[in-house]
Amino acid sequence: MPVSTEWLLHCAATLAQLDAGSTASAAQLARYYDLPAPYLAKQLQALVKAGVLVATTGPTGGFRLAQPASEITLLRIVEAVGGTSPPYVCREIRQQGQGALPADECQNMCVLAEKMTEAHEAWRRSLAGVSLADIVASLPPTAPARTRSRLTSTISAAPSRPSPSAP
Amino acid sequence: MPVSTEWLLHCAATLAQLDAGSTASAAQLARYYDLPAPYLAKQLQALVKAGVLVATTGPTGGFRLAQPASEITLLRIVEAVGGTSPPYVCREIRQQGQGALPADECQNMCVLAEKMTEAHEAWRRSLAGVSLADIVASLPPTAPARTRSRLTSTISAAPSRPSPSAP
Repeated sequence: MPVSTEWLLHCAATLAQLDAGSTASAAQLARYYDLPAPYLAKQLQALVKAGVLVATTGPTGGFRLAQPASEITLLRIVEAVGGTSPPYVCREIRQQGQGALPADECQNMCVLAEKMTEAHEAWRRSLAGVSLADIVASLPPTAPARTRSRLTSTISAAPSRPSPSAP
Repeated sequence: MPVSTEWLLHCAATLAQLDAGSTASAAQLARYYDLPAPYLAKQLQALVKAGVLVATTGPTGGFRLAQPASEITLLRIVEAVGGTSPPYVCREIRQQGQGALPADECQNMCVLAEKMTEAHEAWRRSLAGVSLADIVASLPPTAPARTRSRLTSTISAAPSRPSPSAP
């Protein structure tokens, strides 16, 4: 699973705390979590492509959720970032070598692949059962207002460095 | 997930079809599935280390299940091959950047990491609910005898190549 999965889950949960119609830019989100802005911007576009976020342009442009937070599941975000390919790939080794089964016994999926698929579906169901609204509801009541305030603040929380041109 | 996960699931299911006390060598299993014997042998050792298989030495030595097939789950095999690390790693980005939460708000696991952990546990539970005995029970009744016969056969199923020294 890509390291950016954590980034995008957090960014989406942050956008779910904005007032309706508000947006946050990639630069704001990168500063908020101290992440590399260009790479984060690219990943945010993957969420736009997946229909999770909308990107707007112009002076107040940025990203916002494409749907109500209650309709965006963690599964959609995780699969938008990491792809939808299941981790187990059946290469049909049951049909090769000295033990190769005849083709007519291999019309159904291999039972091992079937069980691996069932496990992957259990994982998907678990993540499909949690929405961004559920995540926000689990935060302390004061969290969203603080999130909005810090996200739009232009003052960095990082210790200021002396300017190279300072006397 | 390593490509060898499929190999080892199949090899373990094959060993589950042997008569009690019988073994199969890495070479036999490699020939049975047309797999690279040295790499397969190394992976079989990982299953020995995990307590799934026992390796015996001597003229009739080889691998056999370390426990009854009903007590060996697919989860144990998959984790013996691929490791037990969950795919999602929380790097606590909630504690960094302009939005960094104070440490006293981070004593519990991040809710996003918690939901990702729950999904991984759902995947694990699914695989822990299937034993090698379940897999063998799903095969046609004639399959185990055929498996044993082909596994111990020294005649390769591959088309024979002409010997380079043939006249």
